[in-house]
Amino acid sequence: MEKWRAAHRLLRYSSKNLFDRQLNPNFRNSTHLSTSGMAYNMNRFVGNLWGVHCRCLSSVVTATQRNPLFSTINSDDIRYFKEILGEKSVIQDEEMLDAANSDWMRKYKGSSKLKLQPRSTEEVSQILKYCNARCLAVVPQGGNTGLVGGSVPVFDEVIINVGSMNNIISFDKVSGTLVCEAGCILENLISFLDNQGFIMPLDLGAKGSCQIGGNVSTNAGGLRLVRYGSLHGNVLGLEAVLANGTVLDMLGTLRKDNTGYDVKHLFIGSEGSLGIVTKVSILTPPKLSSVNVAFLACEDYISCQKLLLEAKTRLGEILSAFEFLDTHAMDLVVRHLDAVRNPLPPSHNFYVLIETTGSDETNDKEKLEAFLLRSMESGLISDGVLAQDINQASSFWRIREGIAEALMKAGAVYKYDLSLPVEKMYNLVEEMQIRLGSAAKAVGYGHLGDSNLHLNISTPQYDDTILAEIEPFVYEWTSKHQGSISAEHGLGLMKANKIHYSRSPEAVQLMVAIKKLLDPNGILNPYKVLPPSLISQS
Amino acid sequence: MEKWRAAHRLLRYSSKNLFDRQLNPNFRNSTHLSTSGMAYNMNRFVGNLWGVHCRCLSSVVTATQRNPLFSTINSDDIRYFKEILGEKSVIQDEEMLDAANSDWMRKYKGSSKLKLQPRSTEEVSQILKYCNARCLAVVPQGGNTGLVGGSVPVFDEVIINVGSMNNIISFDKVSGTLVCEAGCILENLISFLDNQGFIMPLDLGAKGSCQIGGNVSTNAGGLRLVRYGSLHGNVLGLEAVLANGTVLDMLGTLRKDNTGYDVKHLFIGSEGSLGIVTKVSILTPPKLSSVNVAFLACEDYISCQKLLLEAKTRLGEILSAFEFLDTHAMDLVVRHLDAVRNPLPPSHNFYVLIETTGSDETNDKEKLEAFLLRSMESGLISDGVLAQDINQASSFWRIREGIAEALMKAGAVYKYDLSLPVEKMYNLVEEMQIRLGSAAKAVGYGHLGDSNLHLNISTPQYDDTILAEIEPFVYEWTSKHQGSISAEHGLGLMKANKIHYSRSPEAVQLMVAIKKLLDPNGILNPYKVLPPSLISQS
Repeated sequence: MEKWRAAHRLLRYSSKNLFDRQLNPNFRNSTHLSTSGMAYNMNRFVGNLWGVHCRCLSSVVTATQRNPLFSTINSDDIRYFKEILGEKSVIQDEEMLDAANSDWMRKYKGSSKLKLQPRSTEEVSQILKYCNARCLAVVPQGGNTGLVGGSVPVFDEVIINVGSMNNIISFDKVSGTLVCEAGCILENLISFLDNQGFIMPLDLGAKGSCQIGGNVSTNAGGLRLVRYGSLHGNVLGLEAVLANGTVLDMLGTLRKDNTGYDVKHLFIGSEGSLGIVTKVSILTPPKLSSVNVAFLACEDYISCQKLLLEAKTRLGEILSAFEFLDTHAMDLVVRHLDAVRNPLPPSHNFYVLIETTGSDETNDKEKLEAFLLRSMESGLISDGVLAQDINQASSFWRIREGIAEALMKAGAVYKYDLSLPVEKMYNLVEEMQIRLGSAAKAVGYGHLGDSNLHLNISTPQYDDTILAEIEPFVYEWTSKHQGSISAEHGLGLMKANKIHYSRSPEAVQLMVAIKKLLDPNGILNPYKVLPPSLISQS
Repeated sequence: MEKWRAAHRLLRYSSKNLFDRQLNPNFRNSTHLSTSGMAYNMNRFVGNLWGVHCRCLSSVVTATQRNPLFSTINSDDIRYFKEILGEKSVIQDEEMLDAANSDWMRKYKGSSKLKLQPRSTEEVSQILKYCNARCLAVVPQGGNTGLVGGSVPVFDEVIINVGSMNNIISFDKVSGTLVCEAGCILENLISFLDNQGFIMPLDLGAKGSCQIGGNVSTNAGGLRLVRYGSLHGNVLGLEAVLANGTVLDMLGTLRKDNTGYDVKHLFIGSEGSLGIVTKVSILTPPKLSSVNVAFLACEDYISCQKLLLEAKTRLGEILSAFEFLDTHAMDLVVRHLDAVRNPLPPSHNFYVLIETTGSDETNDKEKLEAFLLRSMESGLISDGVLAQDINQASSFWRIREGIAEALMKAGAVYKYDLSLPVEKMYNLVEEMQIRLGSAAKAVGYGHLGDSNLHLNISTPQYDDTILAEIEPFVYEWTSKHQGSISAEHGLGLMKANKIHYSRSPEAVQLMVAIKKLLDPNGILNPYKVLPPSLISQS
């Protein structure tokens, strides 16, 4: 037990640089194999990132046709937009459009000729009213950090980027309610609140670029969900603009408000396909001073499960993260990332990262140490270390957060973001490994505290035969075990046609009916979220 | 400071008996002044409860006409229902119907001639499909403990009571996910979970009678919201039957699931007007062993506010209740309730009840005592006691929970359930008192931690002049300060026509459109939630 050491106040390591293209020149300069016709051959897209032959986020996307009912932009449209927005907010410059047409992984690429940058709700309303009347399709865009092709055009949709709408409107310290515009960058909100003694209830690796409007529109999960719950619980109100330009003011700031149907939830997680979120009201928790991070080893998956249950009961109110990785993930990180090392002897099958956040350093430390001692004695943990300073805590988080990067460096990778009942979660990794044999390595890690598995299949190079072994098996297995094929990333373009694996036909039918009710011309983020074939049916 | 005493493990006092008619023979036998034509004269209803002349939950309800498009039941209908449900589940007995036609306060009374008791989702589906085809209006009913007339018929609607659907389907200890049928009584779920080492994320005074389907349909708030948030965050999935009999299976059990629009939220808080909830999947927190209750005095409202902010920051993760009452509420309780006494000298303007719940008794106690000492030294608290056993804790809760009963005993009472920004909340009580002068006493108490004010106007007897002074002033004031006219009770029949005070016309229009989409014949819980005039417009 000498490894359990006193913990100092720690700040979680920020993983912003994983998402910051500036830091990786290879990324920015990576060979870009996408073409303007990419939507037709996305299932054959092979990227070349970090200088290795790989394929990111594999999924067979059914070929999509441009909806012929949509107009194409003409000079009158441009003139109108310049009139209402001013010259500078109407972007036609090719280089600027190129960035907005691609997602950050350069997996998806559209061919939009126009990006608009409204500065107010009124301007968003005017744009949409016009586009709806002209039947011009649009794609709402925030920080463009999504992983499923939700925030980039598929064809020539008009890009509406709300990044210029980035004002904090109000903050109430008594209730902790923050009201701000949709274009506020998450990290800026985190900094603002830090000065007030509060935190955001969500935290993401992409926080340096992603915007709160996008977070809400995609119901972003992230690192604090196990503690503070989802945005459906934390978003108190929002303002959204419908396809026809109607401004829906639902910007309440109250925790309790049972006045009619709570329709704001329709806009949380609908990926901009029902309306464009323009303002957000969000409940923020007070900042707590004591943070501890432990890195632990378990010999089998059942011990990880039992440890989670113990942590929920015994750490209860101070538990703020419960992450896990298997030995394959650890091997990859240690092998491929500089200056990352396993703080424990390398003989374990599973590793768990536990973070606690509380208001009293002494009490929290005592509680955590008692829990660790007990878990060690009962055999749930076979080894472990408790961070004693911010650098150690950062190095533990770096292991967990470096897995995606290590996988990309190792070769081709097929990525799946799944929710599964905790007790069945790792069975999928094992079954997948048996299915694939020596041809590939199945790697499992993720947010165990939220039942969220990141299943990654690592191979030396991309291979159609392997993909055929993985899909649709992975979706069928997930569906059979009442899991979700989209835990925290949304469906976007990538999985619009996969929705039936996790939703009943009746539920999908209701979604389609709501889409048609709110956006009869289907101009908002077309081809995404719902199967286009269902939307085009009259 | 000798008043801060060591705390023992406490269980919160159960307020079930406040809602249990069996315990109060006066209630059951109280003169029942309602008539079958009550919907037309509800604004004149004067009840006689507990033997005093009083008027509960005052609100001017616009006279409602029976929708002539609805059919009336005939012998063929009865035959059909007996065929699918069996004789025993088709209730036509007058006495049994009488109970189901009235709410627990006997304020609202319908004249239904038929109550159906389905035992399965399939039976609910068959009933609704038939009623929709026949254009027979229905009212979904659970425990019938609502306060706004949402769960009783207005005219001759068919009552569908899901109380026979009361099975627990599954419980997963690792994730804490409980799946059960809608008719499960909340207290039974609490007992079941207690044996498993878990708790429900909501707790209500009405728990002995209310059902989880009704809790979800009304988005019930209650005593644990400040800690665990609303049902929009805690309900992981549900099954609902639409007006046309379509069964919507959205019974997911996952914390993260971004697969399309999260349409389950439409059924949380829509008071059965969009569908009947038949099954619920809910996230339950682990039971924590250490509970402490403190009863404190503050000299002014600003101190209560500051104390709340301090409690959120310093007690943070263990705070589980923050309730307040003014000196008028305390006077009423002490004067009208037997065996209730003020544990502090009676010279204070405000009182605050703080409860903490955590996993470590010693640590929690130290944390709470340090907070109390600090608050005393800074002058936020002028006096206080910390419960040292379960009886003391119960007696503190009895003060807070006895206010409604004391008000009823004191005379006529006009009750309003409002959400308001914390810093403005008590201004309304003060302004109301100035407005009413010596004719009435304005009493303020409620869930300060949730910004939820229970404003009660106490007068010796009911008086139209006083009502005219209160309404619409109270709604206008609430609206002007961005509050909600319906914090945790819903709109029901009582406030269907008041929705515009807390919702924009565009938001109401969207609600109406969704109602028409899901229930084109308007058979589900008619005349409730939304203004009937908007629903009948084609």
